[in-house]
Amino acid sequence: MPEAFNERIGIVGTGNVAWHIVRLFQAAGVMVSGVLVRNADKSRRSSLGQRFKVPLTDDLNALSASSDIMIIAVNDTAIPEIAVNLSDYRGIVCHTSGSCHINLLRQHAARAGVFYPLQTLSTGHPLPPNEIPICVEGSDPQVVKRLKSLAGTIGCPSIEVSSKERGLLHVAAVFACNFTNHMLAIAHDVVISNNMDTSLIHPLIRETMQKALGGDPADVQTGPAVRKDIDTISKHLELLREQPGLKMLYETLTNSIIEKQNIKKT
Amino acid sequence: MPEAFNERIGIVGTGNVAWHIVRLFQAAGVMVSGVLVRNADKSRRSSLGQRFKVPLTDDLNALSASSDIMIIAVNDTAIPEIAVNLSDYRGIVCHTSGSCHINLLRQHAARAGVFYPLQTLSTGHPLPPNEIPICVEGSDPQVVKRLKSLAGTIGCPSIEVSSKERGLLHVAAVFACNFTNHMLAIAHDVVISNNMDTSLIHPLIRETMQKALGGDPADVQTGPAVRKDIDTISKHLELLREQPGLKMLYETLTNSIIEKQNIKKT
Repeated sequence: MPEAFNERIGIVGTGNVAWHIVRLFQAAGVMVSGVLVRNADKSRRSSLGQRFKVPLTDDLNALSASSDIMIIAVNDTAIPEIAVNLSDYRGIVCHTSGSCHINLLRQHAARAGVFYPLQTLSTGHPLPPNEIPICVEGSDPQVVKRLKSLAGTIGCPSIEVSSKERGLLHVAAVFACNFTNHMLAIAHDVVISNNMDTSLIHPLIRETMQKALGGDPADVQTGPAVRKDIDTISKHLELLREQPGLKMLYETLTNSIIEKQNIKKT
Repeated sequence: MPEAFNERIGIVGTGNVAWHIVRLFQAAGVMVSGVLVRNADKSRRSSLGQRFKVPLTDDLNALSASSDIMIIAVNDTAIPEIAVNLSDYRGIVCHTSGSCHINLLRQHAARAGVFYPLQTLSTGHPLPPNEIPICVEGSDPQVVKRLKSLAGTIGCPSIEVSSKERGLLHVAAVFACNFTNHMLAIAHDVVISNNMDTSLIHPLIRETMQKALGGDPADVQTGPAVRKDIDTISKHLELLREQPGLKMLYETLTNSIIEKQNIKKT
């Protein structure tokens, strides 16, 4: 049986990542010593209190004094300032960013870590923990061990990756999530703006994802680009002629598919 | 109770669409009079016979003589020739293309139709019929009625759309399926080529799709582009510097997301 996780966690930030990790920690009985809220007026703090159901504070020193691990879950650009303000702190300090190097926490020498959830997280939209893989990094093996133990306690799979690997995973995530979602948003627009029902394309979206999860998505690439079906491509570009941005995007993506296919064949 | 569907169907073509519709027709007890195979040598015909489990023929006249509806499920460019060769045929003639106008079958005047499955279909990969919406069109209301009845008999939802609307749905399908799959293929490559396990990004892909199916995907757009997070975008472009094609694609998609967001706000 795994050891009980009895370290106290302080959270900095009130965004999507903070909301999810606080929820997961509480669900698993991990002690959350508090959430740091910066410059919040009373009414905002009251609504945040509702949202987080843990003590809110604007006192970083007090929060860190009562925490064994501080998790900085703020925008990338705001991380360094918090890290500097925690210079005297003796516990583990980690950030939750996909693209920031662990060196951003260099003040914390052997007690720096990264706890990055590789998932698209929205406040108020809970996910089962096994669908949130945590990419862990530590300036010391002991930090990695403690952060992996924390991930395990809340039911999340975890993997140790370097800052370089995490950065690449973040690039992959932008393609797999953000750019994919943009493609679906455009498809949605095309259907809606021609007064058709978007549920018509939902089976196609479900099947596209199912197929892609079965192996290398390039092996199941279909459509006019991979067939080099110039007639259909021309018809589509003609249909998009009044939306130059979309037309250019269609051409760029079509060329990219053809290029990838050519590389694959050689 | 719906009337039994007792028309005989002849199929022209042996590709992905032909495989799926033959399978669905047979599963539902619809009579398939045969599948036209062009210029097939004996060994190829034998393997096709295994695949389709219906009579194969290379005689278009004989096939049409024993069919009430002829479905031309071939590449777009090959449709006109088949249509011309069926000039004397008195039954319904339809094609299964997303982007070809019904006028391509103009020889068939009041007996022309379209039976377009809005799905990504691969031979040997069966799908439940309720996941294959059929876009139906007819040169006459009677044709529409019969094709909708055929779709209903095999358990597929159907909708009547014009050639113009079908063309637009096909454009939407290219974004929702082909371009989406290409994004997932690139993400897969980035992970694999850095010796990481692609299953790491599968929860993210599942959640991206789930979220997108819940409404307008633009409402759940996340990532550096929509945040205009220039620091992260620059880091990603730096990581892609040795892959100029990918780098350009990343920039184009990022700009497209920012542009869409700006339009949304105005």
